[in-house]
Amino acid sequence: MSNIIVQKYGGTSIASPKRISIVARRIVGYRRKGYDLVVVVSALGDTTDDLLKLAYKITPSPSERELDMLISTGEQTSVALLAMAIHKLGYEAISFTGAQVGIITDSSHTKARIIKINTARIKRELAQKRIVIVAGFQGVDLLREITTLGRGGSDLTAVALGKVLKAKSCEIYTDVEGVYTADPRIVPQARKLQSLSYDEMLEMASLGAQVLQTRCVELAKRFNIPIIVRSSFTDKGGTMISPEAKHMEKVVVSAVTLNKNETKVTIRDVPDKPGVAAKIFKKIAQEGINVDMIVQNISRTGTTDLSFTVVKENLAKTLKAARKASKQTGGGNVIADRAIARVSVVGVGMRSHSGIAAAMFEALAENKINIEMISTSEISISCVIRKKFAQRAVRAIHKKFKLEKKR
Amino acid sequence: MSNIIVQKYGGTSIASPKRISIVARRIVGYRRKGYDLVVVVSALGDTTDDLLKLAYKITPSPSERELDMLISTGEQTSVALLAMAIHKLGYEAISFTGAQVGIITDSSHTKARIIKINTARIKRELAQKRIVIVAGFQGVDLLREITTLGRGGSDLTAVALGKVLKAKSCEIYTDVEGVYTADPRIVPQARKLQSLSYDEMLEMASLGAQVLQTRCVELAKRFNIPIIVRSSFTDKGGTMISPEAKHMEKVVVSAVTLNKNETKVTIRDVPDKPGVAAKIFKKIAQEGINVDMIVQNISRTGTTDLSFTVVKENLAKTLKAARKASKQTGGGNVIADRAIARVSVVGVGMRSHSGIAAAMFEALAENKINIEMISTSEISISCVIRKKFAQRAVRAIHKKFKLEKKR
Repeated sequence: MSNIIVQKYGGTSIASPKRISIVARRIVGYRRKGYDLVVVVSALGDTTDDLLKLAYKITPSPSERELDMLISTGEQTSVALLAMAIHKLGYEAISFTGAQVGIITDSSHTKARIIKINTARIKRELAQKRIVIVAGFQGVDLLREITTLGRGGSDLTAVALGKVLKAKSCEIYTDVEGVYTADPRIVPQARKLQSLSYDEMLEMASLGAQVLQTRCVELAKRFNIPIIVRSSFTDKGGTMISPEAKHMEKVVVSAVTLNKNETKVTIRDVPDKPGVAAKIFKKIAQEGINVDMIVQNISRTGTTDLSFTVVKENLAKTLKAARKASKQTGGGNVIADRAIARVSVVGVGMRSHSGIAAAMFEALAENKINIEMISTSEISISCVIRKKFAQRAVRAIHKKFKLEKKR
Repeated sequence: MSNIIVQKYGGTSIASPKRISIVARRIVGYRRKGYDLVVVVSALGDTTDDLLKLAYKITPSPSERELDMLISTGEQTSVALLAMAIHKLGYEAISFTGAQVGIITDSSHTKARIIKINTARIKRELAQKRIVIVAGFQGVDLLREITTLGRGGSDLTAVALGKVLKAKSCEIYTDVEGVYTADPRIVPQARKLQSLSYDEMLEMASLGAQVLQTRCVELAKRFNIPIIVRSSFTDKGGTMISPEAKHMEKVVVSAVTLNKNETKVTIRDVPDKPGVAAKIFKKIAQEGINVDMIVQNISRTGTTDLSFTVVKENLAKTLKAARKASKQTGGGNVIADRAIARVSVVGVGMRSHSGIAAAMFEALAENKINIEMISTSEISISCVIRKKFAQRAVRAIHKKFKLEKKR
C-alpha cells in the first residue's frame, strides 16, 4: 500500500474563499503528517446549477457535448483556487483538469464511465512532494472531447483515483459529519454510524440517503476501497464504509431512510393473464425509465390493478408509455399519485433476523399510518405511505428500533 | 484564398443569454451566405475580472499557472453557450478549447505567445459544414499546461486563426461601431473612420485607443490580414484596417487619442554628461518596465532634469528603480506626477505634411492649455498636459483638424 490519501471536497465545503482556505489548512495538516495527498474537488457551491440555468436560458434542449464543455468549467475553477490557497500556506500544490491528468472515459456525454486513468503525471508530481489537486466529475474521451460523469461524479473520481493509486484511504468530505441512522433534520436523536457495509450504503443511497451516490459506492465495493465520509467543518471521525461493518453480528437495523422523490403510477383493470405485466414493463423500459417498487393486487374479476413507483422527473414520460401499454394490453385508466413517500429500514443484520418487518409495520400502525405498498430486499424493507405522514413515520421507526442508542 | 471568415466577439457582445442569441443569429446569417465560419469568443461580460477578484481574495500573489487554469474557464463557458445558441437556430456548430483546437504556445503563463496552431481539427469540422467556435485568449504549451495570451488575447487568437486558415477576412466585433476620430464620449462630433492603416492603428492603440490591442494589429500587419472592427449590435460597416488606408493621399490627421493611464516621473539634477541617461534607463529596463515619452531639459548648471512617463501600474516599481539609479549616477530627488494626460494626433499623412505640430499646439494655446512634454513619431505627435484639461484638449484638437468632416 502506498502512502497516498485521496480526499474529496464537495461544493459546500469550498463555497467561498474563506471555506477554501479552511479546506487548504486541513489538507496541509495531512501533508505535515507525511502523507502524499491527492485532492479531488467539486464545483464551488451552486456553480453547476448556475451554469445549467444559463444553458437552459439559451435553449430548452442543449447538446450534451456542449453541456459537458460548459459545466466542466466549474471544477476547473475550484482546483485553481484551492491550489492558490495551499500555495499561500507555503506548500507546493498543482491543479489538473480531468484531461490533463488522463482520466479517460467513454463518449457518453453527461454520464460518461471511466475507462482508465493514466497515473504518470500524478505520480511525478507526488514524487516532487507536491499536493495534487484534480478536478472531479470530468474526463476526456479518446478524441479528447470533454466528458462529465453524471451526478455525484466527483465522488466517483475520488474512488477511482484511490483505486489506481492504491491509496491508503479515500475520504469524502461533505457538509454532514457522516452517515446517520436517519436524517437529523427529521429525527433530532439520529446517531452517526461509526461504520457501514458497502451493501448497506448502497441500499441507503438507492432508498433516498443523499450522502453518497450509488456508482461511487459500487466502485469502492468492486475494488475494495474503504471510504470515509466526514465533515470538512469539524475534526470528528466520520463514517467508515468498508466490506463488512464491524458491528455486523450485533446490529439488525442500521438506519431509516426516506424518499419523497417518487410518484406512484397505477394501471387499472389490467387483464390478469401471463405476459401482460412483461409487455407493460418492457414498453416502459424501452423509454429508458427505471421502475422502482412494483405491486400487483390480487385479481378479483379477471383483471387487476398494477402499481409501481418512478422518480418524479420521469413521470411525464412514464404516463405516456404506460397509457400506450395499457391500451395495447386491454388495460384501463392510468393514474398518477404524487402524494406518496417511501420509508425504509436498512441493515445487513436483517438477513438473519425475523420480526423486522413486523416491528416496522407495528411502528406505523401505532401512529395510525396506513401502508399502501410494501417491498423487501435482502437488507431492506420499504413501505409506501401518504407523504404527509412521512416525517412522523421516520421518527416512529427510528424510535422502535432504538437507533439513537450507541451499540 | 479560402471561403473562411474568422469572427471574434468580445465579452460585452455576449454578456447575456439574449445577446448570445443575437450573436448566434448574426453568425447564422453569414453561414446562409455560404461562408465557412470560425468564431472566436471572449469570456462573458465581466467574468474574467470576477474570477481574478476571487483569486485575489484567496491570495495576494496567485501563481500564474493557476491563474491561467482559473481564467481560461471564462472562454470555455462562452464557446459552449454560443454553440448551444446556434444549435437552437437549427445549424451545426461545435465548440473547442484552445487545447482541443491545438493552439500551442510557449510556457509564459498569463502572457504566452502562440507558437503554432494545428488546423486539422478545425478543417475537418468545417468540411462537415459545422460552424467552429474557438475559445479565445487561451492555448496550451507543449506539456499541455493551460496558458493565456494576456490582455486582448482573444483578438490575437482571431488574427492568428485568420492567418493559418488563410481566411478571407477577420472581423472583430465589439461594443463600438468601429474606430473613431476621437472617443465619442468626449467628442460627440467624432466620426467613424472607414479605413485605417496598420501603422495608424498601432500608433493609436499605443496612444490609448482601446479598440484593438497592439499585439493583434502587429500580427495582422506581419501576415497582411485585413481586420474589420465593427459592432455586434448593428449592421453598420465598421472600420477596415489594412496595409494602406485608401484615404492616404488626402488625409493628414486621422484621429485624436487620449491616454490618462500614465504618470510622469522626474529625476532632478542629473549630471549632464554622456552615459548617465543610458545607465538610468538600463536600470529601469532591467525591472521589466517600459518607459514611454522621455524628455531631457537643456542643461543650465551642469545638471539637468530627466522626465519620462510610465503606465500607472508600474509606478511603484519605477520609483524604486529610478531612486536607485539616481543615487548611483549622482542625481537628485525623484518625483512622480499623477495628474497628467497625454493627447496625441495620429495619421500617416503627417509624414509628408508640415504644420501639423504647429496647428496642434495652436489648438491647445487657444484653450490656454500648457504643454509640459512633447514627443513625435513618424505618424503621431503627443503632448503631455494637466489631466484636468484632457477632454477640453481632445475637443479642441478634433475641431482644429476638422475631423468631424467626411473626406
